[in-house]
Amino acid sequence: MSEARKIAETAIADVVNDLRGIVGAAHVFTGASDMSAYLTDWTKHYFGMAIAVVRPADVQQVSAIVKLCGAAGIAIVPQGGNTGLAGGGVPSAARPSIVLSLSRMTTIRELHEAGRTVVAEAGVVLEILKDHASAHGLLFPLSFGAKGSCTIGGNLATNAGGSNVVRYGNTGELCLGIEAVLPDGSIFNGLTGLRKDNTGYDLKDLLIGAEGTLGIITAAVFKLSPQPLTQVTAFLSMASVDAALHALNLIQDRTGQSVEAFEYLPQPVLSAIGKAFPALKSPLQGPVETGVLLEVGSSRVSDARTDEAGANHLTSELLILFEELMESGDMIDAVVAQSEQQRADLWHMRESVLESIMAYGPSYHFDISLPLARISGFLEAMDASAAALGFETLTIGHLGDGNLHYALVSQDQDTWNALPLEEAKARAFDLLKQLNGSFSAEHGIGQSKLDVMRALKEPAQLDAMRAIKRALDPQDIMNPGRLIPTAE
Amino acid sequence: MSEARKIAETAIADVVNDLRGIVGAAHVFTGASDMSAYLTDWTKHYFGMAIAVVRPADVQQVSAIVKLCGAAGIAIVPQGGNTGLAGGGVPSAARPSIVLSLSRMTTIRELHEAGRTVVAEAGVVLEILKDHASAHGLLFPLSFGAKGSCTIGGNLATNAGGSNVVRYGNTGELCLGIEAVLPDGSIFNGLTGLRKDNTGYDLKDLLIGAEGTLGIITAAVFKLSPQPLTQVTAFLSMASVDAALHALNLIQDRTGQSVEAFEYLPQPVLSAIGKAFPALKSPLQGPVETGVLLEVGSSRVSDARTDEAGANHLTSELLILFEELMESGDMIDAVVAQSEQQRADLWHMRESVLESIMAYGPSYHFDISLPLARISGFLEAMDASAAALGFETLTIGHLGDGNLHYALVSQDQDTWNALPLEEAKARAFDLLKQLNGSFSAEHGIGQSKLDVMRALKEPAQLDAMRAIKRALDPQDIMNPGRLIPTAE
Repeated sequence: MSEARKIAETAIADVVNDLRGIVGAAHVFTGASDMSAYLTDWTKHYFGMAIAVVRPADVQQVSAIVKLCGAAGIAIVPQGGNTGLAGGGVPSAARPSIVLSLSRMTTIRELHEAGRTVVAEAGVVLEILKDHASAHGLLFPLSFGAKGSCTIGGNLATNAGGSNVVRYGNTGELCLGIEAVLPDGSIFNGLTGLRKDNTGYDLKDLLIGAEGTLGIITAAVFKLSPQPLTQVTAFLSMASVDAALHALNLIQDRTGQSVEAFEYLPQPVLSAIGKAFPALKSPLQGPVETGVLLEVGSSRVSDARTDEAGANHLTSELLILFEELMESGDMIDAVVAQSEQQRADLWHMRESVLESIMAYGPSYHFDISLPLARISGFLEAMDASAAALGFETLTIGHLGDGNLHYALVSQDQDTWNALPLEEAKARAFDLLKQLNGSFSAEHGIGQSKLDVMRALKEPAQLDAMRAIKRALDPQDIMNPGRLIPTAE
Repeated sequence: MSEARKIAETAIADVVNDLRGIVGAAHVFTGASDMSAYLTDWTKHYFGMAIAVVRPADVQQVSAIVKLCGAAGIAIVPQGGNTGLAGGGVPSAARPSIVLSLSRMTTIRELHEAGRTVVAEAGVVLEILKDHASAHGLLFPLSFGAKGSCTIGGNLATNAGGSNVVRYGNTGELCLGIEAVLPDGSIFNGLTGLRKDNTGYDLKDLLIGAEGTLGIITAAVFKLSPQPLTQVTAFLSMASVDAALHALNLIQDRTGQSVEAFEYLPQPVLSAIGKAFPALKSPLQGPVETGVLLEVGSSRVSDARTDEAGANHLTSELLILFEELMESGDMIDAVVAQSEQQRADLWHMRESVLESIMAYGPSYHFDISLPLARISGFLEAMDASAAALGFETLTIGHLGDGNLHYALVSQDQDTWNALPLEEAKARAFDLLKQLNGSFSAEHGIGQSKLDVMRALKEPAQLDAMRAIKRALDPQDIMNPGRLIPTAE
């Protein structure tokens, strides 16, 4: 609180008045009850303090707020749907701060059907953007559990991933351009929607994934894709993780790179789901050591065409391939969803994983990625290490992206409390370093992984990040204390 | 030359000796004849001066050279295949400089078939990398005219594009990670090959396209794709540019996004090709106002399967679509290559465009991009503007990317000399600004477009670029005077 004390209460009152002047009094919250939802993160692990929560209506207001806060030395924490898992969207108590909520910037400015692009403001909820594209016969593919409340500004700030990255890429890969306010209050007008533009440093990709530390993304233009005409959803029992990855390449080749999801669901996770939600059973008989939820989609008329038996072309092709994979021993069993209900059930199973793990017992969750060839090696070594330390493990993952959500768990709190969590984390991070993996694949750093960032990120890269941060935000007003660990 | 004089000749001799100590005497050139090929660019418009041309063997040597030059205040110009079109790879005479040629770093370190990745050093020639991938049954899709001599380091430094971007993206989108030496000589080890990694600012994408001003890319890991099992190449006569773009969306949908090239070749260009190379004729009868070279590829077994008539499935589907497009009036005529020879002829025609324009007469070439919906508007307005000023125009383009190579031409030098080129350029750039276009789509800025960059790039973005450059390269030793115009 020492720095906070440097700004006199009268100065703070002036700033709040000026903020009211910019956005209107109705859009500046200063009361504890009005602010509380903005100061607590989704995980309930992180709480912050703020002078005010400010809700600007447009980019000019955002710019004016940033200039005002810059002049007053007040920190700005941009916030979207507040669904982050790393504590990156709530302020620290160490600096006088405002929360700048993008929740009023909810206009979808333009959807261009022929150009297959859409321009949306930062506060647009992901699901609303998906529905809007869908109403125009197009697909905005980004998708994950929080889609009903997260916003596309937050998705960009964290470069969010999810289940369809294997086909369509992370949020950043879907984005053709951004509008943003930089730390000096200047407006970066980058909503051109160009597919090719080589005119200097890629500031768009610098701000994407920067977690609000280099500016505030206020709008973005995204690529849209054709809606699939047909989708095949299947649950596969594979002989091993490596067999699953081999099968993924074959399925990609045979379907023209049309795999939309390839989600890893091993037996311990299936058991945990069955325990938490008895209605959600694996659709296959017997244990499924290496389960994979596969979805393949196609916009091709010929793939949607059905034969005499009623099966469409894409399904028939996949069934032939599954037979080949069973003959080669890579695949043990497979079931294809025969109805929209069966498809929904499979996805329901997938989407119940986090709750099932939470219900299972106390847990610690890694969000990691590995080169595809190193995944099985990591799992073998880390599962053994965790078991030796007394942990159970529950692992799921976006296997096609090499992204694992690896959880250390225990069935009761007393057992958990006695387990050497820090030792297990150290072993996992050592192993990741050895195997060229990443300690943060898609959830970001925020506050929760600053220690790991300090320990594992290459010093040359940390130094370069600090130099860029100082250059663009010399006063350190943009989301200070997040993403970049302080130098030792 | 004033700054050059600040470094005494004895000091320069010391530096050259130290460089010999780092890379071996055989790999430091100081004689005019040894250096000349490195000091003249491909266009023959740009000549430079250098203390030495230095050819390191590995990243440690690159790091040692950068540290040495940093200490001595000598500028470093990284150079790959020296095939750039913007003068970005040859030194200036205004600063004592070395050319750091990556031409000895030609190792393809690792190709991982199951992971579909390859790690290559910066000096690997693009075509060699393509052949290497091909020998493993995989595709490295980047392709353009200079592929036999350009290097992947230069491709990354300029974020090179080419004919297959519509399907596979620019060089940067193919790259999963880089190894680089930063301006302070530190080594950035980013060869992880991860598909997802959100651990701070994206330094990879900052260095890609930075034209050597923020460091030297020494190696990279790239994604590989399956080789197409079948390719359909066709030449289309479309009713208009907008009809062509409408057709592109339909073809993308019907083929599951399998369009690999969609190249615009209008009648004036076809006439210029026919004039320069009488053997290279449009395969269609009569004039072709809006010609398109289309290539579609598929790795699907079912697409390569032939029917009784001998046509494969992909071709049959396209022919049905072409009929629909003719009925709707979007398409006037089409011919599908029936043999590898006919396919090669079509590509030969496309690849003869630049030479044909050169043979036609004096010319000025724009490398621009536009939102897809704005292309026809630009062409109409700019063609009229150019004609009013007395220019002829020859335009080709990667239409699917909105990237036009637009040339102002004249049939003889005397006429050309009397034409108001600066006025025409000003009109083109004004129009681009109005239409949200880019003045540099894929060739980069180098020296040749610094004026345009100063005039058209948004001041907020130029300021941010300058701040980043100062932060990472405070001595301004990395390719100084390129890419970023000096502040007025």
